[in-house]
Amino acid sequence: MEGKLQQLKSHLSEITDLGLVNALLNWDQSTYMPPGGAKARGRQSALLARLAHEKLIDPSLGQLLEELSSHTKDLAFENDDASLIRVATRDHKQATNVPSSLMEAFYKHTAESYEAWTKARSENDFDTMKPYLEKTLEFSRQYAECFPGYDHIADPLINRADEGIKANDVKATFAALREQLVPLVKAISEKEPVDDSFLHLNFPEQQQMEFGIDVINDFGYDFNRGRQDKTHHPFCTKFSLGDVRITTRFQENYLGEGMFSTMHEAGHALYEQNVNMDFEGTPLASGTSSSAHESQSRLWENLVGRSLPFWNQYYPSLQKTFPDQLENVGVEEFYKAINKVSPSLIRTDADEVTYNLHVMIRFDLELDLLEGKLSIDDLPEAWNARYQSDLGVVAPNHVDGVLQDVHWFAFFIGGVFQGYTLGNVISVQLFDTALEQKPQIAQEIGQGKFDTLRCWMRDNVNQHGRKFTTNELLERATGRPLTIDSYINYLKKKYGEIYQL
Amino acid sequence: MEGKLQQLKSHLSEITDLGLVNALLNWDQSTYMPPGGAKARGRQSALLARLAHEKLIDPSLGQLLEELSSHTKDLAFENDDASLIRVATRDHKQATNVPSSLMEAFYKHTAESYEAWTKARSENDFDTMKPYLEKTLEFSRQYAECFPGYDHIADPLINRADEGIKANDVKATFAALREQLVPLVKAISEKEPVDDSFLHLNFPEQQQMEFGIDVINDFGYDFNRGRQDKTHHPFCTKFSLGDVRITTRFQENYLGEGMFSTMHEAGHALYEQNVNMDFEGTPLASGTSSSAHESQSRLWENLVGRSLPFWNQYYPSLQKTFPDQLENVGVEEFYKAINKVSPSLIRTDADEVTYNLHVMIRFDLELDLLEGKLSIDDLPEAWNARYQSDLGVVAPNHVDGVLQDVHWFAFFIGGVFQGYTLGNVISVQLFDTALEQKPQIAQEIGQGKFDTLRCWMRDNVNQHGRKFTTNELLERATGRPLTIDSYINYLKKKYGEIYQL
Repeated sequence: MEGKLQQLKSHLSEITDLGLVNALLNWDQSTYMPPGGAKARGRQSALLARLAHEKLIDPSLGQLLEELSSHTKDLAFENDDASLIRVATRDHKQATNVPSSLMEAFYKHTAESYEAWTKARSENDFDTMKPYLEKTLEFSRQYAECFPGYDHIADPLINRADEGIKANDVKATFAALREQLVPLVKAISEKEPVDDSFLHLNFPEQQQMEFGIDVINDFGYDFNRGRQDKTHHPFCTKFSLGDVRITTRFQENYLGEGMFSTMHEAGHALYEQNVNMDFEGTPLASGTSSSAHESQSRLWENLVGRSLPFWNQYYPSLQKTFPDQLENVGVEEFYKAINKVSPSLIRTDADEVTYNLHVMIRFDLELDLLEGKLSIDDLPEAWNARYQSDLGVVAPNHVDGVLQDVHWFAFFIGGVFQGYTLGNVISVQLFDTALEQKPQIAQEIGQGKFDTLRCWMRDNVNQHGRKFTTNELLERATGRPLTIDSYINYLKKKYGEIYQL
Repeated sequence: MEGKLQQLKSHLSEITDLGLVNALLNWDQSTYMPPGGAKARGRQSALLARLAHEKLIDPSLGQLLEELSSHTKDLAFENDDASLIRVATRDHKQATNVPSSLMEAFYKHTAESYEAWTKARSENDFDTMKPYLEKTLEFSRQYAECFPGYDHIADPLINRADEGIKANDVKATFAALREQLVPLVKAISEKEPVDDSFLHLNFPEQQQMEFGIDVINDFGYDFNRGRQDKTHHPFCTKFSLGDVRITTRFQENYLGEGMFSTMHEAGHALYEQNVNMDFEGTPLASGTSSSAHESQSRLWENLVGRSLPFWNQYYPSLQKTFPDQLENVGVEEFYKAINKVSPSLIRTDADEVTYNLHVMIRFDLELDLLEGKLSIDDLPEAWNARYQSDLGVVAPNHVDGVLQDVHWFAFFIGGVFQGYTLGNVISVQLFDTALEQKPQIAQEIGQGKFDTLRCWMRDNVNQHGRKFTTNELLERATGRPLTIDSYINYLKKKYGEIYQL
C-alpha cells in the first residue's frame, strides 16, 4: 500500500502545484503585470486550470483512491493518510460529478459577465447585466442539479466553499442572529453618533504601511514566508506553505481602510502559514473552508485589532506616527471611532454590527433566486426593500445597491456570502474557548504579545488544514457545534459599553 | 489541412505557455519571492518543465508535424506556416533525440552543482567543484553523442543556443578576430590610461534608475508591455509578447553598472517586443538565437549607448541629474571614461575591446575539455596561462579566475559562451547595413531619436522571431554571411580616435 500511497501523493502534488502556480499568475496580474500581459495571462491561467482539472477527474485517480480507501478504513479518522484519502476522494467526486463542458461554458460566461459588470458599474446600468445574471442563475441551478439528493438547491453551491454546511442550517442560524441584531442596531441608532472625523484627516501612505507591518509582525505573520504588496482589492494568496502573501490598500484620507485590511489579510495568512508543513503539496495544505478562513481574518482584525486592550498598547506608537492628526485624540475616543456603528449602503465599509445584516440580505436573496421565488427583473427592488427594512437606508443608484459586489457577476449565485457571517460567529466561538483554556491571552493582547493566542489557533484550527470540515473542527476545538451565543454576547457587551445601552 | 494546422498550433501553444509560465516563476524567484518559497518553487518549476517536455516529445506531435510537412512542402521557405512547421519539427527532434532520463539526471546534477558553486565561490574552493565539473563534462559529452554525425563534439551543444552554427566556424572566426584584437589591446595599453575616477563617485540609486528609464523609453522599450525591477543579476524575460520584462542592478559607487546593464537588457527586450504578434503562443515567438539576441543588447548598449553622438544629446541631462559629481567633467571626457579599455580579470566588467578575449579563452578551454585535450584538474592552470598570455593579468584566486562565471557550474560545458562574441560581431554587421540603407540613423541618434534604427531592426531582425536561423537572418538582412570586417573597422576607428593610435 505504501507504493500506492506514494503514487497518490505524487498525483495529488501535481494537481496542487498547478493550482498554486495559477495563484502566482493571478497575484502577478493584480500587483505588477503590465497591461499588455492580460490577454496571454488569461490563456495561460485557463491552461493550468484545465490541466489540473484533467488530472483531478482522471479515472486512474478514482481507482487509486478506491483501492486506498478500502485498505485504510481501519485507520483513525484523524490519521493524516486517512484524511488525505478522504479529502481527495471528496474533491475527485465533486469534480467528476460536474461535466467538464458545463464548467468550461460557465467560466467562459463568468469572464464575459465580469467584463460587462466592470463597465455596467461605471454606468450604473443594471439592465445590461440582467441577461448575464439570468444565465448565471441558470448555470448555478445546473451545477446544483449535478448533485441530486440535496436538501436545498443551494446546498451543493455552499458545499464548494463550506463543506458540509446546509442552507437550512444557515437559515436557522441567520434567523436567530437577525432577531438579536436588528434590535441592537436600533438601540445604537437612537444614541448620540460617535465622532470619527479625525480618522478622515490626511494620513500619508508610507507611515500607514510601516505601522501596519509592525503590527502584523507582532501578530506573528512571518515575512520570511510571505510578503505584502499593494492591490486595488486586498487579498491573501499562497504559492506554497512557505510563501503566503498578502496585499493591502490605503486611503490617505481614511486611516481605517489600510490598517484593518492589513490585519484582516494577515489573519488569513496566519491560517495558511500555520498549516502542518507535512501537508505541503497535498490537498490538505489549505484552510478548510470560507467560514473557517474568515473566522481567522476577523479574529485578528476585530477581536484583537478593534479591541481596547490592543489599542492601550499600540495607540501611543500610532500617535507618535501621526502626531498632527492624533495628538488631541485620546485612546478611548479612538477606540470608539474605529468601532462606530452606522447603518450604511456598502457591505465592505460596514461596521462589525451591521455587517452581518448586509450578508443576510444577500444570502436570502440568493435563496429566493435559486428557489425561483424571485426573478432577476425584481432583484433591485427586492434589494432596496430589504435595505430599507433591515438597515433603514436605500441606495440612490445601482452601483451602491445591487451592483456593488463582484460575487454574482463573476461566479455562481449562491454559496459564498454565508461564509462572511459564519466566520464572524465562529471567530468568537473559537476566541472564547481559547480564553477559557488560556486566560492569560486577554492580558497578553494588552502587552502586544500574541504568541499564546496564535499558538492556540495553530494547534486547534490552523495546523489541521483541510483534515476536518468546519463543523468537525468546531466540535474538536470548542466541544460544541456552531452556536451564536458567544458572538451575541460579545457584540452586546462590547457595543453595550461603547454606546452605554 | 487547416484543421490539422489548428491542432498543431493548439498543441504548440500549450508547450509555449508552460515555458512562459515557468519564466514567471523564475522572475518572481529573482525579484519578490520570500526565502520560504524556494523549495516549492523548485518543485513547481520542474513540474512545468516536465509537462512541457512530455508534450514536446509526444509521438502524436511528431506524426502531426510529418503530415503537415509533406502537405506544406510547396510553401515558400519564409511562409509563416512553413516556418512554424520547420521550427517545431526541429524542436521536437532535438527533444526526442535525448533520453528524458538523461536530461532529468542532468538537471538534478546541475541543481546540486549550482548549489555547491555558490558555496565554493565564497570559500575560493575549486577542489570541491572538481567532481561536479567532471560529471558535467561527462553529461555534456553524453548529450552531444545523442546527435551522431556531428563535425565537432561541441556542435550539438552550440546548436541548442545558436542553431546551425558550427564549432569549426566559430574557431575560424575567433582566430581571425583574435589576430586583430591582441595587437589592438597592446597598442592601447601602451597609451596613457583614461581617467574614469569620476564614474566611481557616489550616484544615488533612485536618480540612476530614473535616468535609465528615460533613456530606454526613448529607445522605444514599451512599459505598457513590460516593466523593470531590480535583481542581483540583470536579465530579460518574457511571459508573452505583450509582457517582456527586464531587471537591472545599481552600484551607488559606479555609474556605469546600472546605466549600461539597463540599456543592455532593454536591447534584449526590444527584440522580443518587436517579434511579429501573429506568432504569439507559438515556438516562433522568440528571438532566434543567443548570438542574435546578444547582437541587439550590445547594439543598444554599445553602438548607441557608448557612442559620442548619443552622449552629446544626453549628457546635459545626466549632468543635471548629478551636478555635484559631473559638473566639471566635459562630454568628451565622459565619453572616454565609459569606453576606457583596460585588461582585467572579470568578463562581465570588461570593456568592449577586451571583452571578446575573455569569451575566447572560455570557448577554447571548453573545446579542449570536450575533446579530451584538457582535464578538469588542469583547468585552473590553463585558465591562468591564457589570461596571462592574452590579457597580461593573472587572477590572485579562483573566484576571480575559473570560478567566476556560473555557466559551467549550472549548465553544460560548451555551447553558450560563443554567443557573446558572435553577438558583438553581428551587432556591427547589422548596424552598418542599417546605416547604409538609412543614413539618417547616425544623425538621429545625436538627436535622441531612435525610431528609424529601431524600425530597421524590427523589420530586418526582430519581427521574424525564430523563422530564420542566425545565418539565414544575416544573409537576408545584410546580404552577407557572418563577417568580422565591420566589427574590426568599428573597433579600430572608435578606439583609434579615443586613444589616438
